[in-house]
Amino acid sequence: MTRAYNFSAGPATLPESVLLQAQAEMLDWHGAGASIVELSHRGPEFIQVAQEAEADLRTLMAIPDDYAVLFLQGGATGQQALIPLNFAAPGQKADYVLTGHWGKTAIKQAKPYVDVNIAASGEGEGFRGIPARADWQLSADAAYVHITANETIHGVEFRDTPEVGDVPLVADFSSSIVSEPLDVSKYGVIYAGAQKNLGPVGISVVIIRRDLLERAGQPRADIFTYASHLAKESMLNTPPTWNWYLAGLVFKWMIAQGGVAEFAQRNARKSALLYGVIDGSGGFYRNEVAAAVRSRMNVPFFLHEEALNKPFLDEAKAAGLISLKGHRALGGMRASIYNAMPEEGVQALAGFMREFQQRHG
Amino acid sequence: MTRAYNFSAGPATLPESVLLQAQAEMLDWHGAGASIVELSHRGPEFIQVAQEAEADLRTLMAIPDDYAVLFLQGGATGQQALIPLNFAAPGQKADYVLTGHWGKTAIKQAKPYVDVNIAASGEGEGFRGIPARADWQLSADAAYVHITANETIHGVEFRDTPEVGDVPLVADFSSSIVSEPLDVSKYGVIYAGAQKNLGPVGISVVIIRRDLLERAGQPRADIFTYASHLAKESMLNTPPTWNWYLAGLVFKWMIAQGGVAEFAQRNARKSALLYGVIDGSGGFYRNEVAAAVRSRMNVPFFLHEEALNKPFLDEAKAAGLISLKGHRALGGMRASIYNAMPEEGVQALAGFMREFQQRHG
Repeated sequence: MTRAYNFSAGPATLPESVLLQAQAEMLDWHGAGASIVELSHRGPEFIQVAQEAEADLRTLMAIPDDYAVLFLQGGATGQQALIPLNFAAPGQKADYVLTGHWGKTAIKQAKPYVDVNIAASGEGEGFRGIPARADWQLSADAAYVHITANETIHGVEFRDTPEVGDVPLVADFSSSIVSEPLDVSKYGVIYAGAQKNLGPVGISVVIIRRDLLERAGQPRADIFTYASHLAKESMLNTPPTWNWYLAGLVFKWMIAQGGVAEFAQRNARKSALLYGVIDGSGGFYRNEVAAAVRSRMNVPFFLHEEALNKPFLDEAKAAGLISLKGHRALGGMRASIYNAMPEEGVQALAGFMREFQQRHG
Repeated sequence: MTRAYNFSAGPATLPESVLLQAQAEMLDWHGAGASIVELSHRGPEFIQVAQEAEADLRTLMAIPDDYAVLFLQGGATGQQALIPLNFAAPGQKADYVLTGHWGKTAIKQAKPYVDVNIAASGEGEGFRGIPARADWQLSADAAYVHITANETIHGVEFRDTPEVGDVPLVADFSSSIVSEPLDVSKYGVIYAGAQKNLGPVGISVVIIRRDLLERAGQPRADIFTYASHLAKESMLNTPPTWNWYLAGLVFKWMIAQGGVAEFAQRNARKSALLYGVIDGSGGFYRNEVAAAVRSRMNVPFFLHEEALNKPFLDEAKAAGLISLKGHRALGGMRASIYNAMPEEGVQALAGFMREFQQRHG
């Protein structure tokens, strides 16, 4: 098979030019005599890679200087345990707004460390919407308020930043970071596993307002302490250098393509095209998320007959459209269309969906 | 520069054939239409990669069935915090035998969770030896005994497995795993960051005697729980797939080369050659570690004059021998000669060291 259009939810498709560069540099990085994955993280070659990656991410996201940027292992789930450990006192309350599967994960990881208050939940409505801000039951003394900016499985996305007063807003942006301009200063902590919009799996980005690093948090190992990672510039222990390097190549590609403002436009067009096909299918395809909070990144949809799922997947694959099977928690289909999915890929999927409906409708 | 002989302590040199394969498969893994780093960890392609990696490692190390094998993020340092969290009751004692820098790290990460008893320490002698087993002050009620099998910085290596009775022996094998045959059944837990003998940085291997997973340990997040990772076959959250894949390629390479018995012979010859040059230099080069516990993996050495360090490193680099600078904690030089360093590389270094001495002696 030549390269397919790959709609995987993460690990997800990467820009072909990035893969080509990584391929070309695989045995000898810039004349160093070795691959970047074979060189010391403390040597000048990797230090350059690491510093450029941070600088480029700061440029892309316009991250203010009073925010620290960390590149860490452990994925978003790991951060979901570290956040209460670092930012909440033992037994302190923290507010969680639950809008899908990953919000549940965040709560599960936090519960051993913090008094979780579910301030609002979309579960009663099957996670098809986001509870109105006016209905959130926030605690006065919460350590922070946690939201999941985009729910990868349920396809629900915050389309604005909720006002939560002086309590720091902590947000899992794993699947929507750098997909459109964001006012970082409205958040206390932004965290994301890299494997959707930022690059390869195996590295996470954590953006922290620096004053929060002064919180005592809870007794914990040094390796679980964000301030210790910052003091060592994310090299408290050996970092995942190849993953960091590949993310850095993705950042350079995004800047060359026009930055997040450009991707915001592409992503709006891509998602509008797919939702248009679904909504215009007369019920052949179905997405039940409230229109105002439909995800621009993950488009889950169902065929009107379950028996059509297998032919849909088989015929899509034959057409060079792969990884469309929905998450096992929901079933159906899901098209994940992060920054690295070209508009041509989404157009090909939209065309296939219309043709499939004609053949099977 | 063409590829140099790279003596980096980790991230370290990888087999050239492994890099060539990864390079060839970078844009399309086995006809899947995507790179392995772009495919879902739950898809059939990566499941195959993951299962083969575990099976191959079990073959290489002859891991008994009553041991679980985990592939995790966080590095060895992360495991050093998870070990007391998973295997010690709050406030329980654990014995640590301190033979160098990484033993100190293990103690530092464990201290918030366990009553650390330093049962023996080589620090008084500058970590140039390993305290005799007869002198260890073990606790009767310890949760485990921790050793560092090979100290990467100090170049000190256990050359046998210490007897510790019924208390589980926990060992950091980051820099010597799969370098020679090992009786896994003598250990409760073996852990290793991959970036020395197993493959790329960003993934760790943890081998656990299954009965230990029944210990309650301490209150902790699910993501910090080994039993939870095992229940999900190391996919409790998205694993670092590319790192796992590359480690798997290294395992296949090791098996094809003859397995750990073959590498044990090569490693013995490689280290004997370098120590021979050092000991035969009449003091021009110096290694002060007790001969019986000199590391076969990391050969730290000093030139008799500090002023020679820079010319040594410059001339070595010009000769295609890189990453020989010693760790900042010790200074001097260090040649790390893991499995993937070919004998030709060590012969080239030995020849260079003799020539350098002739020119500068």
